[in-house]
Amino acid sequence: MLPLNLGEYEEAARQKLPANIFDFIAGGAAEELTLARNRAAWDAVQIVPRVLVDVTTVDPSVTVLGRRWPFPVALAPVALHRLAHADGEAAVARAAAATGTLMVLSTMASTPIEEVAAAANGPKWFQLYCYTDKAVTERLVKRAESVGYEALCLTADVPRLGRRERDLRHKPDFPADVVPANFLGEVDLGSLRGGEVGTALAALTTSLLCPSVTWDDVDWLRSITSMPLVIKGILSADDALLAAEHGASAVVVSNHGGRQLDSVPAGAEVLPEIAEVVGDRLELLVDGGVRRGTDVLKALALGAKAVLIGRPYIYGLAAGGEAGVGRVLELLGLETELAMGLAGVTATSQISRSLLRLR
Amino acid sequence: MLPLNLGEYEEAARQKLPANIFDFIAGGAAEELTLARNRAAWDAVQIVPRVLVDVTTVDPSVTVLGRRWPFPVALAPVALHRLAHADGEAAVARAAAATGTLMVLSTMASTPIEEVAAAANGPKWFQLYCYTDKAVTERLVKRAESVGYEALCLTADVPRLGRRERDLRHKPDFPADVVPANFLGEVDLGSLRGGEVGTALAALTTSLLCPSVTWDDVDWLRSITSMPLVIKGILSADDALLAAEHGASAVVVSNHGGRQLDSVPAGAEVLPEIAEVVGDRLELLVDGGVRRGTDVLKALALGAKAVLIGRPYIYGLAAGGEAGVGRVLELLGLETELAMGLAGVTATSQISRSLLRLR
Amino acid sequence: MLPLNLGEYEEAARQKLPANIFDFIAGGAAEELTLARNRAAWDAVQIVPRVLVDVTTVDPSVTVLGRRWPFPVALAPVALHRLAHADGEAAVARAAAATGTLMVLSTMASTPIEEVAAAANGPKWFQLYCYTDKAVTERLVKRAESVGYEALCLTADVPRLGRRERDLRHKPDFPADVVPANFLGEVDLGSLRGGEVGTALAALTTSLLCPSVTWDDVDWLRSITSMPLVIKGILSADDALLAAEHGASAVVVSNHGGRQLDSVPAGAEVLPEIAEVVGDRLELLVDGGVRRGTDVLKALALGAKAVLIGRPYIYGLAAGGEAGVGRVLELLGLETELAMGLAGVTATSQISRSLLRLR
Amino acid sequence: MLPLNLGEYEEAARQKLPANIFDFIAGGAAEELTLARNRAAWDAVQIVPRVLVDVTTVDPSVTVLGRRWPFPVALAPVALHRLAHADGEAAVARAAAATGTLMVLSTMASTPIEEVAAAANGPKWFQLYCYTDKAVTERLVKRAESVGYEALCLTADVPRLGRRERDLRHKPDFPADVVPANFLGEVDLGSLRGGEVGTALAALTTSLLCPSVTWDDVDWLRSITSMPLVIKGILSADDALLAAEHGASAVVVSNHGGRQLDSVPAGAEVLPEIAEVVGDRLELLVDGGVRRGTDVLKALALGAKAVLIGRPYIYGLAAGGEAGVGRVLELLGLETELAMGLAGVTATSQISRSLLRLR
Repeated sequence: MLPLNLGEYEEAARQKLPANIFDFIAGGAAEELTLARNRAAWDAVQIVPRVLVDVTTVDPSVTVLGRRWPFPVALAPVALHRLAHADGEAAVARAAAATGTLMVLSTMASTPIEEVAAAANGPKWFQLYCYTDKAVTERLVKRAESVGYEALCLTADVPRLGRRERDLRHKPDFPADVVPANFLGEVDLGSLRGGEVGTALAALTTSLLCPSVTWDDVDWLRSITSMPLVIKGILSADDALLAAEHGASAVVVSNHGGRQLDSVPAGAEVLPEIAEVVGDRLELLVDGGVRRGTDVLKALALGAKAVLIGRPYIYGLAAGGEAGVGRVLELLGLETELAMGLAGVTATSQISRSLLRLR
Repeated sequence: MLPLNLGEYEEAARQKLPANIFDFIAGGAAEELTLARNRAAWDAVQIVPRVLVDVTTVDPSVTVLGRRWPFPVALAPVALHRLAHADGEAAVARAAAATGTLMVLSTMASTPIEEVAAAANGPKWFQLYCYTDKAVTERLVKRAESVGYEALCLTADVPRLGRRERDLRHKPDFPADVVPANFLGEVDLGSLRGGEVGTALAALTTSLLCPSVTWDDVDWLRSITSMPLVIKGILSADDALLAAEHGASAVVVSNHGGRQLDSVPAGAEVLPEIAEVVGDRLELLVDGGVRRGTDVLKALALGAKAVLIGRPYIYGLAAGGEAGVGRVLELLGLETELAMGLAGVTATSQISRSLLRLR
Repeated sequence: MLPLNLGEYEEAARQKLPANIFDFIAGGAAEELTLARNRAAWDAVQIVPRVLVDVTTVDPSVTVLGRRWPFPVALAPVALHRLAHADGEAAVARAAAATGTLMVLSTMASTPIEEVAAAANGPKWFQLYCYTDKAVTERLVKRAESVGYEALCLTADVPRLGRRERDLRHKPDFPADVVPANFLGEVDLGSLRGGEVGTALAALTTSLLCPSVTWDDVDWLRSITSMPLVIKGILSADDALLAAEHGASAVVVSNHGGRQLDSVPAGAEVLPEIAEVVGDRLELLVDGGVRRGTDVLKALALGAKAVLIGRPYIYGLAAGGEAGVGRVLELLGLETELAMGLAGVTATSQISRSLLRLR
Repeated sequence: MLPLNLGEYEEAARQKLPANIFDFIAGGAAEELTLARNRAAWDAVQIVPRVLVDVTTVDPSVTVLGRRWPFPVALAPVALHRLAHADGEAAVARAAAATGTLMVLSTMASTPIEEVAAAANGPKWFQLYCYTDKAVTERLVKRAESVGYEALCLTADVPRLGRRERDLRHKPDFPADVVPANFLGEVDLGSLRGGEVGTALAALTTSLLCPSVTWDDVDWLRSITSMPLVIKGILSADDALLAAEHGASAVVVSNHGGRQLDSVPAGAEVLPEIAEVVGDRLELLVDGGVRRGTDVLKALALGAKAVLIGRPYIYGLAAGGEAGVGRVLELLGLETELAMGLAGVTATSQISRSLLRLR
């Protein structure tokens, strides 16, 4: 039987994947306190529905950075899709394009920027880190821009890699043919080995990451591209304000799926505080623990334009390839529309804090 | 041994019924967060009893819409009683009449309106949805009125059917001879099949439901009947005020037993907020999770005139037919009277917020 | 190995007693929400100890109704001690006297008032209900007074018997030779049978109890005896004030061990609110869930003069007869003294709210 | 596989040690409520990280009592290291010295003061109680001072020994050759036997402890030594102020690892309240439940200069001798540095309350 919801896709993926790969996807940092909080924080929010509203037509679409999205969900950047399924990022791109869903491609993709762009022409953003070698960074930006990616998504919460102990526990590394394909030619991938830092991917990330990145580098990034800039990994209102000052168009309120610093709040917890401070200076996205249409509705009511999902679509990919990703998107889209209808709202513009009961 | 309380009737029913039918009755929407909250919300309320009050005579009766009820409990509308027991709605009607308890008959009953009325002449309300085909709606209303139903109970929280995943998980549909009998002649019931929406009943409901129902339809309903109108499925004080403005006599603060939008508050949580706003413009009923006489007492102290129970009497029906329903009512009535006596109140009019300790 | 604490005595008693008798002692009303809260409420209170205080000598004694107690613990009235051990109330009286601990004898004792008084000459109070037959009540009071009981403890929270479902679940009734001995000659005990109300004891209690008892009866009780009056079973500050107005010397803040109305607060929860209102108009005792010396210390810091324990000494009796009761008292006394020493107080008069951290 | 974190070292030690010794180390007092709270209190604190800060260089060092520590962690005094491993305190001293970590040697060490000093010349403090025999106390202080211990750490929360029931439950006492070596010649150790108080160590402690110690003895201690004084075991702001008035240089906010009075707050809970009151009159340390680098970061943000760990390094010693202790220190140091980097701070001086989200 097909999984009925995103939670069941996690179970399906657990059945299908080797434990070290499942754990690489599913795991969080340290005690996984934040990972657990990401789910619990959505569950703690209450929706107060309105009734006897004409909900014949419910339109879950939103406009983000001037682009219309069919429903307020995008695919977060996740490394190495080919770990989950041989069809990898190309399958994800096709499934996303089929529903008009934005895909944020990870720098650490197992399929090159250009191949993903060629696989399907849905909307795409390109995620990157600022690398120690600025020339590497710049080449990646130019490649993405030249093949039609529409925005740059700078991950700000990985100056160092979080302590993901599930990866340290597993001996076997990833299959040799699943590599961060964007770095072929840039780095000697064959020489990478995991070890103290976990996987070979962790070794690569650690070697490339630049812990000295600051807001100056944000300015530099903006100077080398005309793509709008989205900063991902912000949990403090002060940082959101800095992002606005440095010309970001949007931020993703995110704790990196609980994979970086453990003990930080869930996006759902700080989102309303950040929304209050930034007002309309920035568009806000949020991720972490979104599994239900009601979570999407809550995110919008708390001040986000839309949410990103990460693990759920990878579980869909593992369980069913492109069709699995498509089904995950379909389910979340249907659930979002149903949640809106049952809450008595027919357009995302009608969703506000007044729809919630905050205890 | 006979079940000692309503919780044990649930266990007895679970033993007796096929899993797909038990789950149809017991299940809630999505993650069943609201279903769990319905129980937890009553448990969180504390009663502070008064002592050395003469409680020789405790009168649990209440007056609702001008009618005296023997104790503040009525039977909520539930579809297809014959799923639980061959005697179905007729048995329930007889058990209710025997204690003078109000029965709210579901539109989706497996016994026609007229047969239920003929089975026993206790007090009855008729529950309905506003259907896409207004003629169908009107015929149902007229049928109910003509055989003595005393009020119309419009369910407002099902513009679409909630996502009840237990029903989607079970393959087998209901027995062919258990059908929504009020629609014989109106709809080709033989052609109904479950599927993506779950059961055949869900298919029917989905086909009939009108998502464009608004407060205008409430006005229309009032224009075609002289029965007082009760609106069921309200969780927001603003909607309660609208109900009063549109001439409703009462509302049922309800989340549809956790079966519609998951993540909404329990009736017990929003009831005091709604009671404060509506004052005496409406009579308030509440349902969801009531299992104990102390829950009934709490409901009244929080501002309700009475409660409705749904699943518990269906469990009684499954476990023991008419006698089972009777025993469920007897137990809850005795528990309510005992709770009043032990709390030091002798009449429902003495029950107020001062009896509670709210944390 | 001997039990190390009161919790282990419960386990020892569970091993020793038939299930129906253990459950009669251990059980609470309905869902046992209040029973659980009785423990949890003490655990939630935090003590902030003071250090570098000379605690060479710690004196846990208190003065209650003008009598010095060796430590702030008394034995609550419990019915039919001989259910737990053949030596029954006499053994309890001897163990209590050995440590100078007050025993509150239950009206429903399985040993007559006079025999208990003869068994040991420690301090004793006599607990009673107001019975429908005032002559019965008066004879009991006179009997107690004539053999040296020092106070009357009127139980105010049983106008009706709570719903104790463990007793309803068990078929077998108590041994025929364990009877409420104070009623021999008053009532035809041989004819008593359990049934709908549970045990034969419940049947007797129900038959004797007078649900019309009010504060007038308190006045009457005071008129027929010179013993000071203690009212047990009060959870509301208003009732505590009424007790003072009607001449009570003390009240026991109590929910009857969670055996009467379920869903009421723990004594530990309402004690500070009551203490604030009554000031020094009454002496306050508290019971319910006391298992540790730290609970005793918390009770005093929240405003009580002392605590009562019920089930723990009966478990001691079941596990080891008189010696078991003695050990329970010794353990709780030692723990109380240790708690005081470790908290930096050397006399009960130094214990106040400032010793607590209330969240 | 080597343990990956301090929690796994506990498991490794549990595998390696006899149950009575593991329980002696791991256990707390009474119900172990405070023991559990010690962990839960850290988990409840949220860190709000700042991003796009140059964290190329993160310096976790702190200055405590004028001495630079490589990271804000020291080894708390723990009795009888040789119970965990034959190499005992000497191994711990070497591991601590290798990382420059302060070791606080317990009076109840199984290796004499002088041998520990000779084993490694890292920074050391000497922990003591005030004994009934002041001459014993003075000889210990002089011995420590003469071999280079840099501060005296007076334990203030053991006027009596807490009730550690795991020790009372186990029959077998400790190996005969593991003795409190500092008392050889002072006390007839061969005659010590456990019993009612638990272990032979408990018997010794009980016999030596002076329950009459007060702040006057603090003044006396200061008069006999020029070492700065640290008072350990303070949970009340008033006591912290008294410590400052009596010339202490620092206090350790501590509940003795949950081993003394159960029901007291965690250090993490009262630390901010104490920090607010004492301002810069004292340096504050904290212990209890620290297992993660994020806990260290939280402690500093709540007002501590540094933390102490107890059980975790003993688990390291049990699991791997000197190397195990070294690994525990290395892990906690790395985690602390990583937590700082991921939180966007590069020096401990930048850590303040503004880094936290307190709910």
